[in-house]
Amino acid sequence: VLFVTSSCTFTRAPRSLTSWPAASALARFNPYLKFSESGRLTLLTVDTMNANVKKVEYAVRGPIVQRAVQIEKELKEGVKKPFNEVIKANIGDAHAMGQQPITFFRQVLALCSYPELLDDNKFPEDAKNRARRILKACGGSSIGAYSASQGIDCVRQDVSRYIEHRDGGIACDPDNIYLTTGASDGIVTILKLLTTGEGRTRTGVMISIPQYPLYSAALAELGAVQINYYLNEEKCWSLDIDELQRSLEAAREHCRPRVLCIINPGNPTGQVQSRQCIEDVIRFAAKEHLFLMADEVYQDNVYAEGCAFHSFKKVLFEMGPKFSSTVELASFHSTSKCYMGECGFRGGYMEVINMDPEVKAQLTKLVSVRLCPPVPGQALMALVTNPPQPGEPSYAQFIAEKTATLNNLAQKAKMTEEILNTVPGIRCNPVQGAMYSFPRITLPDVSVCAQAKGQVPDMFYCMKLLEETGICLVPGSGFGQKEGTFHFRMTILPPTDKLQTMLRKLKEFHQQFTQQYS
Amino acid sequence: VLFVTSSCTFTRAPRSLTSWPAASALARFNPYLKFSESGRLTLLTVDTMNANVKKVEYAVRGPIVQRAVQIEKELKEGVKKPFNEVIKANIGDAHAMGQQPITFFRQVLALCSYPELLDDNKFPEDAKNRARRILKACGGSSIGAYSASQGIDCVRQDVSRYIEHRDGGIACDPDNIYLTTGASDGIVTILKLLTTGEGRTRTGVMISIPQYPLYSAALAELGAVQINYYLNEEKCWSLDIDELQRSLEAAREHCRPRVLCIINPGNPTGQVQSRQCIEDVIRFAAKEHLFLMADEVYQDNVYAEGCAFHSFKKVLFEMGPKFSSTVELASFHSTSKCYMGECGFRGGYMEVINMDPEVKAQLTKLVSVRLCPPVPGQALMALVTNPPQPGEPSYAQFIAEKTATLNNLAQKAKMTEEILNTVPGIRCNPVQGAMYSFPRITLPDVSVCAQAKGQVPDMFYCMKLLEETGICLVPGSGFGQKEGTFHFRMTILPPTDKLQTMLRKLKEFHQQFTQQYS
Repeated sequence: VLFVTSSCTFTRAPRSLTSWPAASALARFNPYLKFSESGRLTLLTVDTMNANVKKVEYAVRGPIVQRAVQIEKELKEGVKKPFNEVIKANIGDAHAMGQQPITFFRQVLALCSYPELLDDNKFPEDAKNRARRILKACGGSSIGAYSASQGIDCVRQDVSRYIEHRDGGIACDPDNIYLTTGASDGIVTILKLLTTGEGRTRTGVMISIPQYPLYSAALAELGAVQINYYLNEEKCWSLDIDELQRSLEAAREHCRPRVLCIINPGNPTGQVQSRQCIEDVIRFAAKEHLFLMADEVYQDNVYAEGCAFHSFKKVLFEMGPKFSSTVELASFHSTSKCYMGECGFRGGYMEVINMDPEVKAQLTKLVSVRLCPPVPGQALMALVTNPPQPGEPSYAQFIAEKTATLNNLAQKAKMTEEILNTVPGIRCNPVQGAMYSFPRITLPDVSVCAQAKGQVPDMFYCMKLLEETGICLVPGSGFGQKEGTFHFRMTILPPTDKLQTMLRKLKEFHQQFTQQYS
Repeated sequence: VLFVTSSCTFTRAPRSLTSWPAASALARFNPYLKFSESGRLTLLTVDTMNANVKKVEYAVRGPIVQRAVQIEKELKEGVKKPFNEVIKANIGDAHAMGQQPITFFRQVLALCSYPELLDDNKFPEDAKNRARRILKACGGSSIGAYSASQGIDCVRQDVSRYIEHRDGGIACDPDNIYLTTGASDGIVTILKLLTTGEGRTRTGVMISIPQYPLYSAALAELGAVQINYYLNEEKCWSLDIDELQRSLEAAREHCRPRVLCIINPGNPTGQVQSRQCIEDVIRFAAKEHLFLMADEVYQDNVYAEGCAFHSFKKVLFEMGPKFSSTVELASFHSTSKCYMGECGFRGGYMEVINMDPEVKAQLTKLVSVRLCPPVPGQALMALVTNPPQPGEPSYAQFIAEKTATLNNLAQKAKMTEEILNTVPGIRCNPVQGAMYSFPRITLPDVSVCAQAKGQVPDMFYCMKLLEETGICLVPGSGFGQKEGTFHFRMTILPPTDKLQTMLRKLKEFHQQFTQQYS
């Protein structure tokens, strides 16, 4: 039987349909109806679903990671492999790699979860005070109540004092703070506000290449135009204003560029931008009328000597009112990275600067539809931005834990760079900050072999690495890279000894791979 | 100075712009640039933002609630009012209204947050065992690690066993379970997958009127077409298949209806659907090729005698393979309602039935971009679906707390209906389930007076109620209602004595209002 409708061809009759109008009626009503392989009439198929969603890609949890999960299951079931465990260096998930939570934070979270513990003298007074303050700000003194959509008032105040302190006293209005469900939520929300127009007037968003694929995924989903600007690998992944200009002008031929996104410290590239560079970027955004989005979730993760974190907000205000009263900026932070690494709580905030008051009202309305960010994540953000102070009972332990974690990360950043650079065919820029190395790999002529399997060469490389060593990395193609170059992203998070083993195995693998395919 | 560009007219010169190309260049580059009232050039304004976002409305946190927050501040500052406190009966936020959390749930959450407590003999063994099981399933045994994007494996297993038990043994595959950030997140995600086409081929989504405004808000944001079907107020807000048919056929003139959404027990209307009605709806969806979305977050909130909750999944499978192997269904649940009321944790799940495997892969990819739902909310969902069992140390207390809460809600549902129905001009259907009454109010000729202030009459009524009594309700117009009828939504959540006072005040107010405007 062959049914033909206006939009699709049915080559099989339905097998198990309850009631089934004639083909012509079907066509009139719903030409999106499709038969699946089994001959069943299926309403929602890849051919009839949201096309923008289909375009979404997210390499950090892509096919390599799915295969890694399978391999873990196989190992559990006793399947023999040339390794005993999968090492997941694909994602910035500190606790999963054994990093310990900050004791004080977890004490307060336990107290907030089960306030009966407030009578327990096992908990230090400062932890109890923080918990009481958070609970008092919650409806019915429970973290199980919804908060205000923008976030709990006193948490937004903590955030704003934290920002003021970080930025050397530059004022921060709590009304400009929105708590979010991780930084991703804030970034997608701001991009959503900014996306408009059709065809050549569609909003264009400038993102770095390599980029963190949340950006490309969000733009695909929103149907906004992705505008690539390339970081300069030769100069330690620095940002060139000339390249921004080139990229912007090329984009103006086919869309309406409105937004410039920066990730500093860089993901996946690990660079830390200089103050001068940030100033240049702000000047460029002002000149070209671009809304600035500053992804600053790694603000405590700065390791290299001579490097320091400069927030876009601070630099903007230091440039004087000509800039600070005009440039529109949203900056993002999270509880997931830095020294705390509390990814599972999905805590985050954004600060909006010079946002039109009517747009702010629209933003507040938009976030109210989802009711509120998770309250435990908000509580955690209150602690991150208002940690124990000198003189408080938990201060010494807090500082010791924080410092130990950051020192350990700094040591692993250095070690990663050093070991990778001993491998012929691998070249790694200094890991100045964040949690990743993004080394360039010279591959022998694998392209034929890889294409035969329909894989780009660095995917082929990483998949082979996973199968042979259990090491799970993300291919550079998942982040974007200059045509003809290949990379991978590797976190520096595994415990020192495991990271060392991993780097050694990687070295051996790379040498064998090069031999095998040369 | 008057600059004219292709899309807007600038009637003022910029005051504080750093660098400023000629108007013609501006026009070429970015006709979206706008001057704000202050004369400042602003990139993102209500005229240049995402138009779909502007169309979003969410009455549950709309102007009435904003005014309520202001009034609370005024009370704190000592401003004299004819009342001492604002009673928020606008939102289903149980803990904010004094409902106590389930002890067992909070014990386990505290143990998960601060595992040092596992050595504390204050905690019962079953709470410790649950915490150990959840922690073991987390990366690095920490709820601070990301989970799998679909949710933690063992939590999805708990959910699937819960569903099987609820549905009398009908199988539930954990692979069909997706944990979510509250039910809202799941609903928006499924609507996103289903939204496609342009103009007359745009996806249409059938929603009940009155509806919970998450639906209208999500459809506005996605640019999908909202198709209204009216519940029958005269028959206790029941669902008429004839009305579904009428609504569907009318919609086919201008869009492509693909989805039918049902909320059962009803929000804002509090009805509980009969098994027969659910069967009829499923038959209708099958006949008309509609994807079914069943919002079942109030599944434990059934109070009226003779009413029982029937899940769409169960009824679908009881109708036999003709239906159970073809009808596409997504159902949604949450930790926010029922007897637990843990809104702040943003826990939820959805079960997808008969979803095309390729579409499921797309869904999994899409949710992976946001990494994972909040892990504390996932842990809570594990407890809700796997609570203490007979024989375990916490069982008795758990059952006592759960029963007390549900009995109290049932009593308040009855009381609300009874008192409201003593007021001439108010008619309230039985609150069979959920957490709301949605009484019809007969208003005198307030329309002139209200229109003068640009308010619809029930908004005028509710705003006046708030100013005079401190009672915060949501006008029926925020949920949709038949032309010419007026309602409000009131939660039954305030503590019994406060609810009683509130209902008495409401009665007095309604009588005065009627007198004043007659």
